[in-house]
Amino acid sequence: MAEDTRLTPQSEDFSAWYNEIVQQAELAGHSPVRGCMVIRPYGYRIWELMQADLDARFKRTGHQNAYFPLFLPLSALEKEAEHVEGFAPETAVVTRGGGKELEEPLVVRPTSEAIIWPIVADWIQSYRDLPMLLNQWANVVRWELRTRPFLRTTEFLWQEGHTAHATAEEALEETRSMLGVYRAFMEETMAMPVVTGEKTPGERFAGAERTFATEALMRDNRALQAGTSHYLGQNFARAFEVQFQTEEGEHDYVFNTSWGVSTRLVGGLIMTHGDDQGLVVPPRLAPHQVVVVPIWKDEDQRVLVLEAAERLRSVLAGELRVHVDARDTLNPGAKFYEWERKGVPLRVEIGPRDVARQQVVAVRRFTPEGEERKRFLGEAEAIAVLPRLVDAIQAELRDAARQRREAHSVRGLDDYGTFRERMEGEGGFVYAGWCGSEACEAKAKEDTGATIRVLPDEEFRSDPSPGRCLVCGEAAAAEALWARAY
Amino acid sequence: MAEDTRLTPQSEDFSAWYNEIVQQAELAGHSPVRGCMVIRPYGYRIWELMQADLDARFKRTGHQNAYFPLFLPLSALEKEAEHVEGFAPETAVVTRGGGKELEEPLVVRPTSEAIIWPIVADWIQSYRDLPMLLNQWANVVRWELRTRPFLRTTEFLWQEGHTAHATAEEALEETRSMLGVYRAFMEETMAMPVVTGEKTPGERFAGAERTFATEALMRDNRALQAGTSHYLGQNFARAFEVQFQTEEGEHDYVFNTSWGVSTRLVGGLIMTHGDDQGLVVPPRLAPHQVVVVPIWKDEDQRVLVLEAAERLRSVLAGELRVHVDARDTLNPGAKFYEWERKGVPLRVEIGPRDVARQQVVAVRRFTPEGEERKRFLGEAEAIAVLPRLVDAIQAELRDAARQRREAHSVRGLDDYGTFRERMEGEGGFVYAGWCGSEACEAKAKEDTGATIRVLPDEEFRSDPSPGRCLVCGEAAAAEALWARAY
Repeated sequence: MAEDTRLTPQSEDFSAWYNEIVQQAELAGHSPVRGCMVIRPYGYRIWELMQADLDARFKRTGHQNAYFPLFLPLSALEKEAEHVEGFAPETAVVTRGGGKELEEPLVVRPTSEAIIWPIVADWIQSYRDLPMLLNQWANVVRWELRTRPFLRTTEFLWQEGHTAHATAEEALEETRSMLGVYRAFMEETMAMPVVTGEKTPGERFAGAERTFATEALMRDNRALQAGTSHYLGQNFARAFEVQFQTEEGEHDYVFNTSWGVSTRLVGGLIMTHGDDQGLVVPPRLAPHQVVVVPIWKDEDQRVLVLEAAERLRSVLAGELRVHVDARDTLNPGAKFYEWERKGVPLRVEIGPRDVARQQVVAVRRFTPEGEERKRFLGEAEAIAVLPRLVDAIQAELRDAARQRREAHSVRGLDDYGTFRERMEGEGGFVYAGWCGSEACEAKAKEDTGATIRVLPDEEFRSDPSPGRCLVCGEAAAAEALWARAY
Repeated sequence: MAEDTRLTPQSEDFSAWYNEIVQQAELAGHSPVRGCMVIRPYGYRIWELMQADLDARFKRTGHQNAYFPLFLPLSALEKEAEHVEGFAPETAVVTRGGGKELEEPLVVRPTSEAIIWPIVADWIQSYRDLPMLLNQWANVVRWELRTRPFLRTTEFLWQEGHTAHATAEEALEETRSMLGVYRAFMEETMAMPVVTGEKTPGERFAGAERTFATEALMRDNRALQAGTSHYLGQNFARAFEVQFQTEEGEHDYVFNTSWGVSTRLVGGLIMTHGDDQGLVVPPRLAPHQVVVVPIWKDEDQRVLVLEAAERLRSVLAGELRVHVDARDTLNPGAKFYEWERKGVPLRVEIGPRDVARQQVVAVRRFTPEGEERKRFLGEAEAIAVLPRLVDAIQAELRDAARQRREAHSVRGLDDYGTFRERMEGEGGFVYAGWCGSEACEAKAKEDTGATIRVLPDEEFRSDPSPGRCLVCGEAAAAEALWARAY
C-alpha cells in the first residue's frame, strides 16, 4: 500500500469513502462474477472473530450447528405461499447437472426454511424432541441488481438459526431471546449500539408472522438493519408437515423461529467506527489488537529492537493478539500509515533509544476527548497496561458510537415538513408517532426515502410517547423509529 | 433411539453396517435433493472439531483464510485445458438468475483454482508479496452418480489451500509440508494411521504436475484416500496470468499448490474405528468425551446422584467435554446403549450406592487387550484419572488401527495370481513392484478392482525393494501400494 493513497473524506462522499476503505484496508477484492464477494484475509479474519463470538453465544443458549443442502427443489420453495413470493424473483437456478438438463430445476438457497423443515420433520416425533434448536453457518444467494461489498451482495455468508417449539409462547420467547443475543453481541463485541423492536407488517420476512430487528446508525446518519429474528408461527410447519405428539397424546404442528446475521455486519463495523484516516476495528474483533513497529537504522539496532519487540509480543501473547511488523521493505512511517488505515487499536513503537530507556511508545488509533493519544510506558508497565488499554478502547468506542447516535436522534418531532427537511438533510433517527396505516409508511418513503425501521421496544420509546402520526396527524397507534436506511 | 435397533455386523455386510451407523448415531440424515448431504448436529460437531484442529495447524504454518465466490464463469474453468476436462463433466450449472436467462452460464465451484487465481493475480506484484498462503473453508459441488453419506456426495464441505511461490522448489516444499500437516492431523487427532506418497500420472488432480496423498486402510480392508496435496507448477499461473516481479527485476509466473480434505474424513473416522456395537470416536474429536449417566429409582436418589454427576462435570469441565445425561424419559440401560452406539469414549455411571461410597464407575467404549473395561474410581481419584484415561484411549485407538493395518498389509508379493486372489478375498494393502506403465495399472484395475494408491514415501517402502512388476514381471521402476479403494 503506497503511503500517498488518497482516502476521500467521509463528509465529501461517504459512499466513495466506504468503497476506498474496503479496498485500501484489504477487506474485500474485486470479483469477476457480478455481485459475488471476495473476502480478503484481513476482512475474513474479522468475520472469523465475529463467528467465534456469536457461535459461543449460540452454544451457550443451547443451539447446535448442523448443515443442510445448498440446493432445494423449486417445488419445496413453492410450498409456503408468501415465502416463494418474497424469494423466487431473486433466486439463482441450476438447470444442468453432470452434463444433463435436470428434470426439476434446483434453487440455490436464498434462506433455508424450505429445505430444513421437510428434513427435520423426520427428526421430531414427540414433545420430548422439542425444542429443536439448530443453527447453520452457510453461504446463500440472492440475485441483487445493485451490490456493494459486505452490505448487499449476490452471495453472502451468514448464520441462520432455525428452531421448533411445542408452544407459540415458547417460540416467541426464543425469537425475542435471540434478538437479545444479537444485541449483546453488537454492543459488547462490535461496540455498535442498536435499537431493537418489531418491524411493521410490510417489512416482515416473507412467511413470518412477526419480525424483530436490531437497527444501528451509521456515521453518515443512515440506518443499518444488522440482524433479524422471526416468529414464524405454524406457517412453515403446516407447509412442510412438521408435526409432533403433545404431552397429552394429541398431534399438533410445531411453532418455528428463524434468525440471522451476515457478513453485512462487517459493513456495519466499517461505517460505525471508521474515520477519515481509515478503518477503526474494535479490539475484540481486531485481527491484530496491537502492532509493534520496531524502528532501526542499522543492523545492530535492528537486532536490538526486534529482540525487544519479540520479548513484548511473547509476554503478551496469552492475553492479546500482538503482531510484530518486522518487514525490512517498508520504513516505519509507511507501517504507521498502513496499520492506521487498517484500524489496529494500538500501535507500539520501539526504537533504539526506547530500548536503552527500557520503555515503549503506545499510540492509540482512537482517542476520546481527555485521553492522551501517545503514552510512554516502561517495559514492565506496558505488560500490565496494554491489556487494560485495549479493554478501555473497546468501551470508549461503544460510548462514542452511542453518543454519535444520540446526537443524531430526535424525539417529539411532529411536523411532517420538518421531518422531510431533516431526512433530505442530515438524516439520523427520528422517533415519532405512526397511525398504523401502510399508506402513511408508503407516503413517507416516497417523499423522503425514509422508512419505519422498527416500532422500538419499550426501553427505547419516548416519554411522553407521541400522540399523533407524523405523516397524517391522526392518533398514533405506536411510536416508530424512522430513518433512511441501507 | 429404540434399544432394539439392529446393527448389521461388519463381517456380514460392511456397507449396510456403514449406512446404519450413519443413521443410528445421528451423523447424517436423508436429503430430498439427490446426492446432497444433511449433516446432523452430532456429525457436524465432529466436523467442527476437525475444522478447529486443522485450522489451528494451518494458521501455525502461516496460512490465512479468505473467501472466494461460489460461482465461476464457464469461460474461467475452460482456461486450463486439463482442469476443464477433469471437472466440466461433473459440474452443476446456473443458467437463470433473478428471473432471467444468464448471458454466460455460471458453474458452481467443483474446486476453486479457476476462480481464485484470476482474482489473486491482482494482489501479487513482486516477490515481496510471496509466498501467498491462502486457505478457504467452503462447500463445493461435483455431480456424482453414486453417492454415499460423507464418502461421496454431490455437495460436500471441505477446505482448499491455495498458495503461490516464487520458485518451484518452494512450491514443492509447501506441497510436501501440507501433506505432512495432514498426516499429523490424521494420526494425532483422528487416530487414523496413513501411508503417504505420490500418485501415479493417471491419478493426478486435473491440471497438477504432481499429486501426493495420504491413504488409510478401513476396517473392511479397502483403502480411503483421505487428503491430497498438489504441485501445480506454473500451469494455472500461465492460464490466469499470475505474474510477479522477481528480486532481480524480471517477470515470471508464480508456482502454485493446492491441497484439501473434506467431510469425507468423517467417513474415514467411522470406518477406521467403528465396530459391531456402533461408532467409536477418538477422544480428541468426540462431541462428548465423557458421558455421565446418573442412576436413580426415586426422587431422593435422583437429587443425590444428579448432584454428584454435576459436581464431577463442573470440576472436569476445564479439561474434558463432559455431558450429564439427566433425561428422565429413558432408563439407564437405554442411555448406555445410545452412547455406546454414538461412540462416546468413556461412560461414567453414578448410582446411590456409588454416592454413598464416594465413588464412580468408569466404563470404556474401546478396551485394548490387557486393560479393564470397567473401573471403580474414588470421586477425587476420578478427577485425576479420567483426563489421563481419555488421553490413553486416544493413543490406544491409533495403535490398534495401526496394528490392524499392518496385519492386513503384505510385502514381497510377486505372484500376480496370488495378488488377484487376495484382492478378491480379504483385500488390504499390497506393497509390490510396478514397471511404470499405465497398461499394468489398467490391467490390475480391470482384473481385481485394485489401483495403485500411491508410490509410497521412503519410510513406508520395503527393504529390499521389490525388483519386478507385480503385473508384467518386468523390472520395477518403483514400489507401489496397491489396494481396492473407496
